[in-house]
Amino acid sequence: MKKVAIIMGSDSDWPVVQGAAKQLKEWEIPFEAHIMSAHRTPEAAAEFAKTARDKGFGVIIAAAGMAAHLAGVLAGNTTLPVIGIPLKGGAGDGLDALLATVQMPSGVPVATVALNGAKNAAVLAAQILSLSEPALADKLSGAKEEMKAQIAQKDAKLQAELAQ
Amino acid sequence: MKKVAIIMGSDSDWPVVQGAAKQLKEWEIPFEAHIMSAHRTPEAAAEFAKTARDKGFGVIIAAAGMAAHLAGVLAGNTTLPVIGIPLKGGAGDGLDALLATVQMPSGVPVATVALNGAKNAAVLAAQILSLSEPALADKLSGAKEEMKAQIAQKDAKLQAELAQ
Amino acid sequence: MKKVAIIMGSDSDWPVVQGAAKQLKEWEIPFEAHIMSAHRTPEAAAEFAKTARDKGFGVIIAAAGMAAHLAGVLAGNTTLPVIGIPLKGGAGDGLDALLATVQMPSGVPVATVALNGAKNAAVLAAQILSLSEPALADKLSGAKEEMKAQIAQKDAKLQAELAQ
Amino acid sequence: MKKVAIIMGSDSDWPVVQGAAKQLKEWEIPFEAHIMSAHRTPEAAAEFAKTARDKGFGVIIAAAGMAAHLAGVLAGNTTLPVIGIPLKGGAGDGLDALLATVQMPSGVPVATVALNGAKNAAVLAAQILSLSEPALADKLSGAKEEMKAQIAQKDAKLQAELAQ
Amino acid sequence: MKKVAIIMGSDSDWPVVQGAAKQLKEWEIPFEAHIMSAHRTPEAAAEFAKTARDKGFGVIIAAAGMAAHLAGVLAGNTTLPVIGIPLKGGAGDGLDALLATVQMPSGVPVATVALNGAKNAAVLAAQILSLSEPALADKLSGAKEEMKAQIAQKDAKLQAELAQ
Amino acid sequence: MKKVAIIMGSDSDWPVVQGAAKQLKEWEIPFEAHIMSAHRTPEAAAEFAKTARDKGFGVIIAAAGMAAHLAGVLAGNTTLPVIGIPLKGGAGDGLDALLATVQMPSGVPVATVALNGAKNAAVLAAQILSLSEPALADKLSGAKEEMKAQIAQKDAKLQAELAQ
Amino acid sequence: MKKVAIIMGSDSDWPVVQGAAKQLKEWEIPFEAHIMSAHRTPEAAAEFAKTARDKGFGVIIAAAGMAAHLAGVLAGNTTLPVIGIPLKGGAGDGLDALLATVQMPSGVPVATVALNGAKNAAVLAAQILSLSEPALADKLSGAKEEMKAQIAQKDAKLQAELAQ
Amino acid sequence: MKKVAIIMGSDSDWPVVQGAAKQLKEWEIPFEAHIMSAHRTPEAAAEFAKTARDKGFGVIIAAAGMAAHLAGVLAGNTTLPVIGIPLKGGAGDGLDALLATVQMPSGVPVATVALNGAKNAAVLAAQILSLSEPALADKLSGAKEEMKAQIAQKDAKLQAELAQ
Repeated sequence: MKKVAIIMGSDSDWPVVQGAAKQLKEWEIPFEAHIMSAHRTPEAAAEFAKTARDKGFGVIIAAAGMAAHLAGVLAGNTTLPVIGIPLKGGAGDGLDALLATVQMPSGVPVATVALNGAKNAAVLAAQILSLSEPALADKLSGAKEEMKAQIAQKDAKLQAELAQ
Repeated sequence: MKKVAIIMGSDSDWPVVQGAAKQLKEWEIPFEAHIMSAHRTPEAAAEFAKTARDKGFGVIIAAAGMAAHLAGVLAGNTTLPVIGIPLKGGAGDGLDALLATVQMPSGVPVATVALNGAKNAAVLAAQILSLSEPALADKLSGAKEEMKAQIAQKDAKLQAELAQ
Repeated sequence: MKKVAIIMGSDSDWPVVQGAAKQLKEWEIPFEAHIMSAHRTPEAAAEFAKTARDKGFGVIIAAAGMAAHLAGVLAGNTTLPVIGIPLKGGAGDGLDALLATVQMPSGVPVATVALNGAKNAAVLAAQILSLSEPALADKLSGAKEEMKAQIAQKDAKLQAELAQ
Repeated sequence: MKKVAIIMGSDSDWPVVQGAAKQLKEWEIPFEAHIMSAHRTPEAAAEFAKTARDKGFGVIIAAAGMAAHLAGVLAGNTTLPVIGIPLKGGAGDGLDALLATVQMPSGVPVATVALNGAKNAAVLAAQILSLSEPALADKLSGAKEEMKAQIAQKDAKLQAELAQ
Repeated sequence: MKKVAIIMGSDSDWPVVQGAAKQLKEWEIPFEAHIMSAHRTPEAAAEFAKTARDKGFGVIIAAAGMAAHLAGVLAGNTTLPVIGIPLKGGAGDGLDALLATVQMPSGVPVATVALNGAKNAAVLAAQILSLSEPALADKLSGAKEEMKAQIAQKDAKLQAELAQ
Repeated sequence: MKKVAIIMGSDSDWPVVQGAAKQLKEWEIPFEAHIMSAHRTPEAAAEFAKTARDKGFGVIIAAAGMAAHLAGVLAGNTTLPVIGIPLKGGAGDGLDALLATVQMPSGVPVATVALNGAKNAAVLAAQILSLSEPALADKLSGAKEEMKAQIAQKDAKLQAELAQ
Repeated sequence: MKKVAIIMGSDSDWPVVQGAAKQLKEWEIPFEAHIMSAHRTPEAAAEFAKTARDKGFGVIIAAAGMAAHLAGVLAGNTTLPVIGIPLKGGAGDGLDALLATVQMPSGVPVATVALNGAKNAAVLAAQILSLSEPALADKLSGAKEEMKAQIAQKDAKLQAELAQ
Repeated sequence: MKKVAIIMGSDSDWPVVQGAAKQLKEWEIPFEAHIMSAHRTPEAAAEFAKTARDKGFGVIIAAAGMAAHLAGVLAGNTTLPVIGIPLKGGAGDGLDALLATVQMPSGVPVATVALNGAKNAAVLAAQILSLSEPALADKLSGAKEEMKAQIAQKDAKLQAELAQ
């Protein structure tokens, strides 16, 4: 299976971003996680993106806050799909990161998920990889069923409470 | 090759959304385009999403404006990657469509591109399909080189103008 | 009397949403509360909305946060009035939920109340039901008088404080 | 059948607001339309709201722009359901009218529809009245079917275009 | 001297609003403070505004949050200058209160100060009254000089710190 | 009667700002209009504000767009009430001018009116001056009655149209 | 004198950005203008920034719209001061470009000017260069005096109009 | 070497603003820090700016919150480059300070950095001074290398954690 790369701009992003790693691990999707910055290590970031396809990566997830350029810069250096996680925090309220991640110019898309949406970035990566991995498609269907079951269970619990 | 579905909420969205169709056609990626609405034809939309993988689709692109629920509703009914194009227009200024498309709950991502980013939705779909289509990866690399060449050409033109 | 349905996307919404249940109970308006999700249990949600009128419901209240599609999806499947409560929380600041709830397309309205406005959703439901329930109209008038009295009492208390 | 009141703050709002009147007329719902202002004719507005229920009104629709207080002021003086249409225009961009209409305090809801959502205000009024008017419920179901048919027709037209 | 009225929509606003009362007291400007609501006690509010000039008031300060209609409703019922203090709090972030207070229609202004700007509302009231009260003009000049002195003092303290 | 000063940052603001001049002229309130800039003629602006009270001014109206500092800078140099008109235009959308005008620090208020609210700035100035000018209070009451009459007339016209 | 570089992401930005070139030319500051893109020609952009100081540049001006990464990417590759001009246009309203330009992480500043503020970028560049170019400081003082004179002239013209 | 001035509107800004002082000290750039206010000590602020160049200053850093006029007012009185730090806090959310700092009119730029971006203001000042101070350029290059090293180190630490 192709690998997923998780790139974040700072180690302080890890508490949020590890939600993606956790989900990938649960589904046994191979991944690497790295700290690289569009502004502080621009060469390393560009180099990583340029060689990612050849190194067996299939999807790049990039998480950054404030003027979040990381996903865009990686997308400028690869033809792999790049998923952007805009992060809340710093002095911005997240709208800065969201707009800086999603409003990419024509020809260089970033697949943006919700603010702090680390788990969803992993789900999206799995959906992408599932096109050539039937076993992963099954896991995704299973997860969808499980979500349904959980909600039904919670609803049952609520009914029990209301009936008291 | 897997097909791409382009779903839009209204025929009035076509002038923007056809940018995606044009790009897919240029790269010879098979696609279907349909008008379906999360609110006006909810059953047709749900049915389409549920059967899309089995019908040979690999990616669903969904475009909608205002309280843009279409991409999210499709994503709720499939495990395929769903790309959302938030549209400007109506009495909203686009921020409504952007937030309603991107801020999806955990477990059900929508890969959101820029406001009116129809071409980028197609590029992202191609990037996703390229994981198992080496020829498509080559086309994407070619397009990247072409973008570079175009900018170099425009810069040369500017230098000529400035030199006068 | 027709029943009110209170639908929420997640059990974590209950601490806010139960404000609606409390008010309905106080006025002896029959209601049911359920957890259902536009994205996680789309079929259950659609089914509920489609059969709600025949099951004796008169109003549906739907509460959701972030890309809040729940009220809109229910409204797409019923001709009953649907009241939407946009919820604050998650990584969004509530503007996402507000716009995703209120900016509905032509033909499919959602009667949106304030962010976290659970009590007001119940008051609005009661106002709607009051059209054919004179006793309820009296209760609403009584509540309005009580609000006046409370404010007069608070003003009197303030005067006493200022006079010291 | 109970009547619907359509109240607007200025005659310049009529080009947008008449969308509500048109829909009500189409469904043969009796209505009155009036120009009244929360700030310029506060007594007339308050008086209208206070006596509306006794005069046979079942729903009040109020449309206003900028610091849109009209719906809220009417709601303060009646226990009927009040539907607010926030209007774009003036030097504001509509967010002012939306927030000023929807963010009502506890006890005094306004059922807010989309910016300039005049038709939807009428649909919501019809949904409310339909609870005691089975014929109106049928018309609403008919309109829902018609919307579906229109979208199917538009989709068919698109397929024909794409097949060329 | 003419009196200042301080009107707030709820007793929960008092902790912020008393900043205005404190400043007026310090400058010995006569004032009354009252709890009245545009939506819960509309008649009392209208009545107060209509009779305020005759009762010796010169300025009305009105503080409210969310869909802050109080200042506007008072302004609709008086020709006295009305100062609006938009309040933060509730589920809104203050932008709702600011826009609902300041974006008044032509002919009915509200003199809006900063979010939670209770002290500034009092200063503005004093500036207004100072036009016919030379002693108050002197107090305002004195306060301006005192502000200068305080800043000079704080700067001196900073210089001392930096010199260590 | 005390004079009103109308200060604007640029002659391009005059088409909007002259709405204030027109209203003052109609009510025979003496005024001066000047072009001065907080950033381009800071000394002239400061000097004007410092001497305004002694020169017989009672109110200063200041209109500016973008990072609208003019009203604030004048308010820093006078104890007269300063009314700020935030202007739309330039590359900003008016929110910049509104926030830059209204969010003044403690001790230095600006009485902010709506975006482009030139007429309302004049009405507010008249309300302020009316405290010591009974004739002006009468004119303001007259204008209020006229607004009522106009709305009643427009409503009558609408009724005539609807009756056809 | 050190040269100024003007970099823009697209030739469609030139109509706005040439305002900077014009001002530099007027003050006889040597400059180069280039089209380079953070996403389409990332290597050229990085290379330019890395060698700019050695090639005799003293300031880099970068203009971009939407998810405006250009200034940030250049700043990541140089220790020269980088001035960012956020551009309006595309489907964004400029707030995207402003936040994506200004909210840079610690250690990598971008000196951001107003939306479309091309002339001001040139003025800022001149101010920076003036530290070691006394003749430029004189030109800047001259321009400041000229602005004052222009405003005085416009005010005189307004006085003449008002006196008629 | 030319000196840097750090001006802030209030001593309560110091905890954030001292980040600039610390960075300047680390690089041995001479600086002064002062408390001055555009609204409370307008004369001192104007005087400081007017004489700053002659007193040996090369850059002015100005930090302010809410309707942040300080940087703009200083820029109106000097031809030195002025760096603005918009501050979060007070009842505003920082957007007020950002827009009030950056949206300067033509001819009077403020080099705006991120919300609370005190360190970056110092880095930008150093970049400006580095044009005529080769030693400072070396320090800036060193800091850039150090940032790279730190990120490499953090990445190594993450790899170690992931390998466990």
